[in-house]
Amino acid sequence: MATVRLWTDAEAEAAPRVQAVFADIRAVRGSDFINNFWRGLANDPATLERTWNSLKEVMVAPSALDPLTKELIYIAVSVASGCSYCIHSHTAAARAKGLTDAQYGDLLAVIGMASETNRLVTALGIPVDPEFDVTG
Amino acid sequence: MATVRLWTDAEAEAAPRVQAVFADIRAVRGSDFINNFWRGLANDPATLERTWNSLKEVMVAPSALDPLTKELIYIAVSVASGCSYCIHSHTAAARAKGLTDAQYGDLLAVIGMASETNRLVTALGIPVDPEFDVTG
Amino acid sequence: MATVRLWTDAEAEAAPRVQAVFADIRAVRGSDFINNFWRGLANDPATLERTWNSLKEVMVAPSALDPLTKELIYIAVSVASGCSYCIHSHTAAARAKGLTDAQYGDLLAVIGMASETNRLVTALGIPVDPEFDVTG
Amino acid sequence: MATVRLWTDAEAEAAPRVQAVFADIRAVRGSDFINNFWRGLANDPATLERTWNSLKEVMVAPSALDPLTKELIYIAVSVASGCSYCIHSHTAAARAKGLTDAQYGDLLAVIGMASETNRLVTALGIPVDPEFDVTG
Amino acid sequence: MATVRLWTDAEAEAAPRVQAVFADIRAVRGSDFINNFWRGLANDPATLERTWNSLKEVMVAPSALDPLTKELIYIAVSVASGCSYCIHSHTAAARAKGLTDAQYGDLLAVIGMASETNRLVTALGIPVDPEFDVTG
Amino acid sequence: MATVRLWTDAEAEAAPRVQAVFADIRAVRGSDFINNFWRGLANDPATLERTWNSLKEVMVAPSALDPLTKELIYIAVSVASGCSYCIHSHTAAARAKGLTDAQYGDLLAVIGMASETNRLVTALGIPVDPEFDVTG
Repeated sequence: MATVRLWTDAEAEAAPRVQAVFADIRAVRGSDFINNFWRGLANDPATLERTWNSLKEVMVAPSALDPLTKELIYIAVSVASGCSYCIHSHTAAARAKGLTDAQYGDLLAVIGMASETNRLVTALGIPVDPEFDVTG
Repeated sequence: MATVRLWTDAEAEAAPRVQAVFADIRAVRGSDFINNFWRGLANDPATLERTWNSLKEVMVAPSALDPLTKELIYIAVSVASGCSYCIHSHTAAARAKGLTDAQYGDLLAVIGMASETNRLVTALGIPVDPEFDVTG
Repeated sequence: MATVRLWTDAEAEAAPRVQAVFADIRAVRGSDFINNFWRGLANDPATLERTWNSLKEVMVAPSALDPLTKELIYIAVSVASGCSYCIHSHTAAARAKGLTDAQYGDLLAVIGMASETNRLVTALGIPVDPEFDVTG
Repeated sequence: MATVRLWTDAEAEAAPRVQAVFADIRAVRGSDFINNFWRGLANDPATLERTWNSLKEVMVAPSALDPLTKELIYIAVSVASGCSYCIHSHTAAARAKGLTDAQYGDLLAVIGMASETNRLVTALGIPVDPEFDVTG
Repeated sequence: MATVRLWTDAEAEAAPRVQAVFADIRAVRGSDFINNFWRGLANDPATLERTWNSLKEVMVAPSALDPLTKELIYIAVSVASGCSYCIHSHTAAARAKGLTDAQYGDLLAVIGMASETNRLVTALGIPVDPEFDVTG
Repeated sequence: MATVRLWTDAEAEAAPRVQAVFADIRAVRGSDFINNFWRGLANDPATLERTWNSLKEVMVAPSALDPLTKELIYIAVSVASGCSYCIHSHTAAARAKGLTDAQYGDLLAVIGMASETNRLVTALGIPVDPEFDVTG
């Protein structure tokens, strides 16, 4: 099920802007595999380019957090958003970056714990302690 | 604004089960400060005890992920759930555990990026690639 | 903070459609108090009327679930949606209908538990057991 | 589709901590059926144990709300979280506890109504009436 | 997978209230096709009638926004709620009302952009500028 | 309340990257007013730049949807995400672009209607009709 066509490699080859992004994904990842997300975004080259460029800047370029930690954050957001595709693709990505079973168990436990306390806090309407305010 | 009374220290002292949890929070954290969440939960001692015991087990006990990484995951879930209190309290906790400005910038960037791609994937109804399935 | 003006009684009196709904709210509830939700909806009489009529049909008319149970379901949805106003107004309504402290503690515990398992299930991508499918 | 392996009975038998939880689930429910959620959680025995123990305490032990009411609250949260698995399993559980078609119709109507008014309130930014504040 | 039976035309013909709604849907849309949503709602005639009547009033009757714009808003809400069925049905409806590929690309871009900034704002706890407040 | 400092104009003037973005916002909007969102993002110049550049490309540059329609989609997403700040700022932006009271009433009605049917569909687990699938 999808609301758009998923582009095949043959179709991408006939569309220079799409082909350029697909080639860059392959080069950056060192793999021939292009997952369905990019094949769906190919229907709108401008969004395909902007999304891939942002993803490279945020997730691939060296930064203050290591790549595995960023994948864990990505999974946490995807779980809370209920995005099954994102959960599957980024859990696979985290495993490829070295996620152990024990770390994955921890990730689940924190996501579950945070979800529970989020709802308790919301139900109780707890006011923010002034100690947590930065604006003074 | 709150849907329940926030217990003062004096009130807690008169309720042994609440007082025991407050004392343990202070001992574990090495601080006299009890934030509003626990003061609100005090209205239901059973939930107060279960929540604090789970939080200790998940967030405080040594485990496969370091304490700062667990706080980042907690913040990510809280942002996606829209829990303002949780965001404020766990951002403060992360800073107390050494979160730098650069790491915080990264955290924001990943949360924003994941939120955008979550919605794009959902809008397009992208099917999960068989490569991401573990049950296969 | 609001994106619209909250209508005063004097303003409502000058607008027959708004005034008719306000009068019906007062008659049905047996109270002169009109909460801010209706004062905000008054800016669009068609939505004010449709919303009040639906609410009466769903929440006030006798039905298969008792009024307090319906308020608990309403609160649960409002917590999960993160609607602070709705949580405050329906928690007050539930208390007016006899919600005890012990029942409220139970409500919180179930909301928290469900939120935690919801996220665990989502993170794990658990497939629905065929035993739970009605379509056969 | 799942991000983890679903444990078979044979695999559980070889892992004492998992086997103990599975045996307790069967004893408490008086049924041999173990649904997929527990088979997925089995990958992390600590989370399996903590989750089952909390669920027993919240959903099975006698408390101030009757078992069917607690299932309705669980379904409402699961619908608002968009957890398809949870909706299917707890709707089946509610039916097993006596949910009638008329009560189910009511449940749907309240969930729909609350979802609509939640969004209207949020869109309008309605401020909480002081009458609903408990902290005074 | 569903939690209820999806009514066939033959079953609807034997239930006058359901049959009346199905006939009206066909007349209003000028098509014999009844999509699964209505076949599922048929299990509760009161909710079927109320939902169809509201949908006609909001989405079909002439109003201040044109039909295509209303479908785009509907899709945006459905994406943010993570309702896959709603996304598929309303994307099909929008296309039937003339949605072009370029407009669809724009819709996706705005939904993605809004989702990203929503989370950034929430993470930072940005206070509303007084310039945006209507209540003065 | 905020988790970060909101930059004043004086502080921005001392930071060239921040100052350049603030100057561009003023030039593009033809107004001296910089709202709090950008003052909060200023703490991380890279995210400030990327977010503003994306926003210009998506919301300001001429495209297939008119500016007011894009604001309505933005508001719909923000309501569903529960982002109060975003709702207030984009409702003000929509009004500045000509949103009438009648159009705003329509927007609310569609958001409310979609939210209600989203939850009904999710609760019932309605399967997508094959007629809505593009992948064939």
